[in-house]
Amino acid sequence: MNFVTHLECANCGKRYEANLVHNLCTACQRPLWVKYDLEALKTKFPKKALLGRPSTMWRYLEMLPIQDPDKIVSLTETTTPILQTKRLAASFGLDNLFVKDESRLPTGSFKSRGMTMAISKANEFGIKKVAVPTAGNAGGAMAAYAARAGMEAYVFMPEDTPAINKKECYLAGAKTFLVNGLITDCGRIVGEGKQIKNWFDVSTLKEPYRIEGKKTMGLELAEQFDWELPDVILYPTGGGTGLIGMWKAFAELEAMGWLKTSKKPKMISCQSEGCAPISTAFEKGERFAPKFENASTIASGIRVPAAVGDFMILDAVRQSGGVALATPEADIPKWMQLAASMEGIALCPETAVCLGALEVLLKRGTIKNTDRILIFNTGASQKYPEAVNEQLSRIDIKKPIDWAQI
Amino acid sequence: MNFVTHLECANCGKRYEANLVHNLCTACQRPLWVKYDLEALKTKFPKKALLGRPSTMWRYLEMLPIQDPDKIVSLTETTTPILQTKRLAASFGLDNLFVKDESRLPTGSFKSRGMTMAISKANEFGIKKVAVPTAGNAGGAMAAYAARAGMEAYVFMPEDTPAINKKECYLAGAKTFLVNGLITDCGRIVGEGKQIKNWFDVSTLKEPYRIEGKKTMGLELAEQFDWELPDVILYPTGGGTGLIGMWKAFAELEAMGWLKTSKKPKMISCQSEGCAPISTAFEKGERFAPKFENASTIASGIRVPAAVGDFMILDAVRQSGGVALATPEADIPKWMQLAASMEGIALCPETAVCLGALEVLLKRGTIKNTDRILIFNTGASQKYPEAVNEQLSRIDIKKPIDWAQI
Repeated sequence: MNFVTHLECANCGKRYEANLVHNLCTACQRPLWVKYDLEALKTKFPKKALLGRPSTMWRYLEMLPIQDPDKIVSLTETTTPILQTKRLAASFGLDNLFVKDESRLPTGSFKSRGMTMAISKANEFGIKKVAVPTAGNAGGAMAAYAARAGMEAYVFMPEDTPAINKKECYLAGAKTFLVNGLITDCGRIVGEGKQIKNWFDVSTLKEPYRIEGKKTMGLELAEQFDWELPDVILYPTGGGTGLIGMWKAFAELEAMGWLKTSKKPKMISCQSEGCAPISTAFEKGERFAPKFENASTIASGIRVPAAVGDFMILDAVRQSGGVALATPEADIPKWMQLAASMEGIALCPETAVCLGALEVLLKRGTIKNTDRILIFNTGASQKYPEAVNEQLSRIDIKKPIDWAQI
Repeated sequence: MNFVTHLECANCGKRYEANLVHNLCTACQRPLWVKYDLEALKTKFPKKALLGRPSTMWRYLEMLPIQDPDKIVSLTETTTPILQTKRLAASFGLDNLFVKDESRLPTGSFKSRGMTMAISKANEFGIKKVAVPTAGNAGGAMAAYAARAGMEAYVFMPEDTPAINKKECYLAGAKTFLVNGLITDCGRIVGEGKQIKNWFDVSTLKEPYRIEGKKTMGLELAEQFDWELPDVILYPTGGGTGLIGMWKAFAELEAMGWLKTSKKPKMISCQSEGCAPISTAFEKGERFAPKFENASTIASGIRVPAAVGDFMILDAVRQSGGVALATPEADIPKWMQLAASMEGIALCPETAVCLGALEVLLKRGTIKNTDRILIFNTGASQKYPEAVNEQLSRIDIKKPIDWAQI
């Protein structure tokens, strides 16, 4: 029992039954939204139902597409903290700069929110074999949840994916393949293999439920901000599921009457100049983003040259009064160091681009110094050793210590 | 205001004032316990006070040594989940095998519990410069909390410490030094530098508060098990602060009348045969453990050849009816793979030795199949790429895909 009414194509509006297995819209090959009976939710899921529930993303169960809670495949997705910054905020001249630290989730990234939902729904449908193309963390998360569910998992990743993502997929027993191409090439292989290998395609937005998992980022932050949303959200954008999911969460919360005001955050979609399809389309005023050629960035999670949900990202950004923009690839290590050394917060390279965007948008006046600003740290920087070139000193214990050098 | 009465040497019993800065006992160079007025706690801190408090380690504030909550230096140390296992439990013939997943804490390891406490107390005392020797994760955690506090940090680590620990210290702005020796050599440098550099020594058990932070592992698990402790706790042991801290937590909870029964868990101290000082001393019936020569293990966190709290570990293990034992170094990757592939739980190499110990102790009859068994996953396996040699297949997108090979 849940409050889902049906599924609906985000592009052409075609309706689908909720209790059947779906990937993209069969008419236009675009993603499906999960639709809820928000009127029924409004009366049957009062805010006070949250009191006393565990601090996990499952506290919002009624707003999620689960039919059978016994089929949930979970590693306990605990509520991620929102950390206030002081020195970092001050370095930008800000009063209120917050970081929501998604690195605290299973496998150290926000990908677990989407994957626990997708694998739980696959489990409900009796699916035993799943496959995914990945830029890194999604593969690690899917491998973990598939293992937890006892499903067979196939992961396809670019050969230059961070080493740790390769290792976590291998440890979790996923059949993992390195591909001499980009995530879009991996996605093509997963698509081709559907008929031949009979696996379920768990690609970003190519099944309808990862977005419902990511939606919990929006539900959580709304509750953490006591139902008054921040003024600005900066979000590193690869496939964009999180940004789309949060925007959907805010709309649903508003329809249910849970928000104190109707004011929504400006959604800022942040990319690196090394792979900037969404920001390019935004600047040109387009709704669909052509493939970004020669994509290259150390921030592997946003090395997504073509996103099937491009129009959903761009719609949300525009509706919110936000922008999509790209900042210099070369600045990524600088921003990682700034946040870690000022606050002890280990930003992943994807999130580092948000600080670049923040700097630009403060100068432009798009963001004000008095705004309440929230940045999503989508993963643990510890998963990206390739992004950090440390310079450390050495001490030879066979010699007397030169204390002046320490 | 807190409930601390005094500090007391764990070896010779010498008393110290709580409101002064201390390292080891000045008489015998052994660690100090923080002592509380448990009678006052019993009446003034009723269990129901926990209701509605956030799910972080700070929910037990009255049982912690903080004087001034405004001085707490925190990255929000959320309660770590206890995950029940099914396939993994069954593979050992067990009914109830649980993993407490400490990788969800800031910097991806349990070290943050101790460091948030030590740095908070240092902050109360007005200390501005801290130093630590580290096998890896403690350095990363101290660097992060020192950054959060705006303190100057010095970290000394063996040159073959995992790369990610080097990088996280560097990012957090700690002055980080690679030493051609072991953690004991690093500890000597930190000790020598106290007078010269005027830093505070935050070494394991050489200041009194890291153990109070680690104690929250015991408080948390007691609450999570609804105040009926598990029958067995398996814990990977380097410096042993966590094991000592949990044993202290159980004693304090019992004195306060919070436990439903007086039955305590058997505490199992797990090491690798590559570095097994505690298990060696345990087998010989000794209370103090001589330095383990030629220590070598991929599980860097338990590569601690000499622990200043050796007698505290061994006392706790013996009082609990548990054992200390070492299992083969070569089995570590096998256990990591087993847990990840069966449950999606990414055990660090330190925790992997606990599965080896579990196998041995089930055969010996020390642990029964019907026991409720809890294993501590002390960190994210993702921080240890060196411990995993993945074997992955490749796909060349310039050629037709050979589906029979997938």
